[in-house]
Parts: sequence; C-alpha cells; structure tokens
Amino acid sequence: MFDRIQTPAVLVDIDVAKRNIERFQTYADSHGLKVRPHIKTHKLPAIAEMQLDAGAVGITCQKVSEAEAMVAGSGRLNDVLITYNILGDDKLHALVALAGKVKLAVVADNMTVIDGLSAAFAAAGATLNVFVECNTGADRCGVGTTEEAAALAVRIHAAPGLRFAGLMTYPPVGGAAKVQAFMTEAKALIEARGIAVPAISSGGTPDMMKAHLAPIATEFRPGTYVYNDRSLVARDVASWDDCALTVLATVVSVPASNRAIIDAGSKTLTSDLLGLVGHGHVLGRPDISIDQLSEEHGRLRCPSDINLTVGQRIRIVPNHACVVTNMVDGVYVYGKDKAPELWPVPARGKIV
Amino acid sequence: MFDRIQTPAVLVDIDVAKRNIERFQTYADSHGLKVRPHIKTHKLPAIAEMQLDAGAVGITCQKVSEAEAMVAGSGRLNDVLITYNILGDDKLHALVALAGKVKLAVVADNMTVIDGLSAAFAAAGATLNVFVECNTGADRCGVGTTEEAAALAVRIHAAPGLRFAGLMTYPPVGGAAKVQAFMTEAKALIEARGIAVPAISSGGTPDMMKAHLAPIATEFRPGTYVYNDRSLVARDVASWDDCALTVLATVVSVPASNRAIIDAGSKTLTSDLLGLVGHGHVLGRPDISIDQLSEEHGRLRCPSDINLTVGQRIRIVPNHACVVTNMVDGVYVYGKDKAPELWPVPARGKIV
Repeated sequence: MFDRIQTPAVLVDIDVAKRNIERFQTYADSHGLKVRPHIKTHKLPAIAEMQLDAGAVGITCQKVSEAEAMVAGSGRLNDVLITYNILGDDKLHALVALAGKVKLAVVADNMTVIDGLSAAFAAAGATLNVFVECNTGADRCGVGTTEEAAALAVRIHAAPGLRFAGLMTYPPVGGAAKVQAFMTEAKALIEARGIAVPAISSGGTPDMMKAHLAPIATEFRPGTYVYNDRSLVARDVASWDDCALTVLATVVSVPASNRAIIDAGSKTLTSDLLGLVGHGHVLGRPDISIDQLSEEHGRLRCPSDINLTVGQRIRIVPNHACVVTNMVDGVYVYGKDKAPELWPVPARGKIV
Repeated sequence: MFDRIQTPAVLVDIDVAKRNIERFQTYADSHGLKVRPHIKTHKLPAIAEMQLDAGAVGITCQKVSEAEAMVAGSGRLNDVLITYNILGDDKLHALVALAGKVKLAVVADNMTVIDGLSAAFAAAGATLNVFVECNTGADRCGVGTTEEAAALAVRIHAAPGLRFAGLMTYPPVGGAAKVQAFMTEAKALIEARGIAVPAISSGGTPDMMKAHLAPIATEFRPGTYVYNDRSLVARDVASWDDCALTVLATVVSVPASNRAIIDAGSKTLTSDLLGLVGHGHVLGRPDISIDQLSEEHGRLRCPSDINLTVGQRIRIVPNHACVVTNMVDGVYVYGKDKAPELWPVPARGKIV
C-alpha cells in the first residue's frame, strides 16, 4: 500500500482518525460538553471539517497565522478560539481582519494584552471575545488566583471593543479537581461583580475522558486525540490500534547484528521525549528501541538480533504526533477505501 | 533593528557567519585540508556561495532532495557530496538526474546500496562517485572494520556505473586519533588491492580546529560552524559573539515574579537538548533558564526576580542551530550594513 511513497514519510489512517474523533464526541455529547478541537495535531482543514461533522462547535488554534491558514483552507471553519496572548501591531491587525470573517475569540492573562486588544478593536469599530486564561497548575500562562481572574474579567468587560467571553485553562494532567475548584470560585467572584461568565473552556487529550470530573467546564479542547501517539499509549489512554499517525521509514544500514539505522531522524520524529525513553515505537517490534536520533538518522537497538535488512520498511508511532505534522509539507492520508494521497499541511510552520 | 519583525523569528547575522566561515577556511588552508561544508545548518544557497567564495571545494548534503534544492537555488553549487546510503527507485532516478547537472558523490556502507547505485547508473550510462562510509566510533552508519571497508571498495571499483571515490566518516567528538588509525589502515588495505584512494573525508564542527590531528583526511565537512550555537559554546569552541543565529521572541506573560512565558516554543527552538540542561541561552541574561517548552510557549525561570515585562523582546541562542533552520520557511538575514531581509530557506524540510 505504501510502496510508492518515498521515505521518510508521515502517514495518516483516516479511518482511525475518524473513529478517534467520534469516540470523544460521543463522550462529550453524553455529558453536555461542547468540543472545540485544537488543530495543532493535524493542521489540516479537511480533518477540522471531519471534527465539525462529528459535532464540534469550532476549532482552537494557538497562533494567528495558524487560524488564518485554517480559515483560508475551508469555508466551514467559522468559529475560532486562539488560546494565546496576542501582542503587537501586526498580529492585532491580522486579528481584526480575521474577526471580520469568522466568530473569533482569544485569551488574555494580563492587562497589557487586554489593553492592546481593546485599542485595536475599538479603533476598528469591531468587537472581540476575550477569555481570561487561568493557571490551574500547569504553570505556563494564566493568572494564578481567582481574584486576578475576576479583575481581568472586569477590565475586559469595561474595555471598548472587547466582550468578556469566559474563563479558559490548560490544566496539568490529572487536574480536573483543580479546574473545578478554580473555575467555580472565579465564576462566583465574576458573577458577584454583575458580569456573566458565558463559557468555561478546558482541554488536554490525556484527561479528556475525565472531563466530566470538572463539570463546570462548558467546552473541551482536545488536540492529540485525533491521531494519538506513543505518549498517550504510555498513559493508557490509547492503544497502538488507535494511533492514526505513523512515520514510514527505510532501513538504510545494519552495521551490527543488534543495531540498524533508518532514514528518519529528528527532522521527522523530532526530539520530543514527553518523559519517555527512546524516540518512538516500531509497530510490530516492541523489542526494538530507537535510542538515538541525528537529524536524518534514527538508530534502532535490539537486545538480541535485530533481524532487519537494508531496504526494509518499518512504521513508527512517534512520541508526539503534533510536532511531527509540523515537520512536513505534506502527509499521506489513506484508509480502508482510500489509496494513500498526499495532502498539503496548510498550518505547518505557522508560528506567528 | 528588529522592531518590524513578527515574533518568533529566526535571525541570522551575516557578518558573524562570514567571519565563522573565513576562520575555518584559514585554518584548513594552513593545513592543506579541503573544506566541504554541510548545508544542513543554513539550508541557503546564498550562504553556500559565501562558503565557496571563501575557498570551499563544494558542499555536503544529507538527502537527495536537499541537494536538489541547493543546486536549483544556485548555478555555482556544482560539486556535491551526499553523505547518505541512497536506496529506492525514486531516489536513484533523482540521483542520476542530479549527476547530469553537477559533480556528484554519495557514500555506501553495504552491498545492497552499492548494487542499487550500480544498477541505476549503469542503466543510465552514467558514472557515480561512491565513498565507503566508515564507523570510527560514532556507531551510526559505517562499516566497523577496515577489512569491510576494503571489501566494499573492491565491490565499488568493480561495479558498472560506479567509481570508488575514497573513504568517509562522521567521527565521534574527540575522535581524531581513531580517524587517523582507521583510515590509515583501510587506505593501505585498499591500495594493497591495487585501488587508489582519491579522498578521505571527515567532519564535525566540535573538533574542526583539531582536524590536523587526523592528517590522513583530505577534506573536512563542518556544518554548524557557520552559525554556531549553545552546544558549541558549551564545548568551548565558540563564544556568544560567534553565534550568528538567534531566535527573536516576545514575552507574552509574566505570571510570577520569577517566571515568564515567551512566544517561542518547540516549534521554533525544537526539543533538541544535545546533552544540555534547558532549551537555549537568553542573550544578556545568563541568570535565566528556559526550563520548559510547549509547542508555542517557552517558559523562562530566574532564581530571583526575572525583571521582564509583557511585550518585551529577547534573543535566544538555541541549543542546536541546524534543527532551528528546519522549522521556518524563512530567516531574517541582517548585518552591519544590511537591514533585516527575509530569505526563504529552500532546503527546509527536504527529508527524502
């Protein structure tokens, strides 16, 4: 099936992706939770449309240029949340333009960002939906206290050109209880100031099937679930059969009986470890570890004879699917009834 | 100078790059060593031309598609070594086409690769220069013994469509003595079979100023030296002033007095650690560590007050320059007499 594909290559099993999408949508529907998938995993408008078809309310992007690429690639992606502090004239102008095309929301965790958003949208005579980002333990962005969250909500509510959209968080793994506690308190504080909290957005694939443990959340932003990867199999939230994305590689050298080299390295699999040992799982060969990556070489080790031959092809489930789709200009999409087809990845490398 | 550039962005100081190129060329010239720089670091035909201008004899690429992109980008890149085992009909056809345009050589470390190269070039009525790749301790590709090297040299020498070009290695750091010993013995074995050894190619930026310790090598393939990076500063082979490539980032959040978040994450800096702790060096702020990268967020920590404000810009020397240029479609090139200009990166993502 993959004989005509030059290696290394990124393969996507569209049937598995569809099954993964539907599985979470069914779960979310049963709990009255809206789904707003993060496009970072696939970066493909056509797969975002599959997510909408299953019932998603819109998409999540991290950067303005990602949102632009996704919206340009599909007339149906008309509800976008950018979960990022947007700063700088160029990005603010792009945001105003985007808000003229789709229902748009962003997040903010500080006054500087809010003031910039307000100035740009007020000057344009437009309105932007703004969530307050809350730190519920991941210690990345986000206000650290519910009082700060309330203060920013007040600021957004009062700011020309802005509309307070609610609260957002990217919780740490196992953080449902913290999300529930933080959001409940923050919501009460904000409502006590006479401001409604229209939505509470949480996310993270590892805990997506535990989203009901933070019932205050109104929507969830899973990303990696559409493809899954070795990190999620390691967390017991997916099996190898649920992994839609694999890397096809060719053995280029077998310099020792227990060692082989493939033509996929960190430029394909990336160096992301996500806490794991080794750089991916060779399908059908759990005895093999990928113990070292150079940029274009992957080194495979086996405690006994590796039994691979030069020219042989293998498929690898990478540690982290999202970063792999960012390495390639195209992925090969295939399925039971679909011969592999090269799809360009419009949101690849969209970092600004 | 960088005010108009949207962040995150990759910056290249062309004056520093030129100085780095000239420094190694001067050293190599003084030892009668040819320079064949690896383009993986910059992926830019214009910088490869600067390397030729300084005295390089040609370029090194790792993949066929890299070589194609470089040759397409400059009429002057007409001597190319691809240091890779090339397998598969598509790549062999591409190799034959490339050999019609430039002086071309590849490497091989096994009979399967040699037989494939021979079949393709003999069928095309063309001739390809083939080096034998030798493992001198890096334990990646390469034959492990001088006897195997000699056996492959004999095979190449006898193969229709091929010409034995010499021996090639990518040594481990500190491996000059091993290179000298392996290559001296292998050369003698091959010459004893009546076959000339036209060239011996070694490489690796960390040891480039010790290349004279393996005087049997006739050419050297430095890569990262053109830009340098944090890994080379850590090895004391470059200073921060020698680092031509930096990542420009904006502080988007200061959620705690000792913590800040920037808009550059693993999609810009990559997760490559190269044995280091942390993900890059913030210029002028040695007290700050980049302790965590998400795809679009970098987390900065400081043992005391971090003293950064939202909207402020910083510049980061990444751990590994080569992988950073593979993340972006364009880099901003600037110099003393040159305002920043966006240069496309033609060999980005060329992995096949």
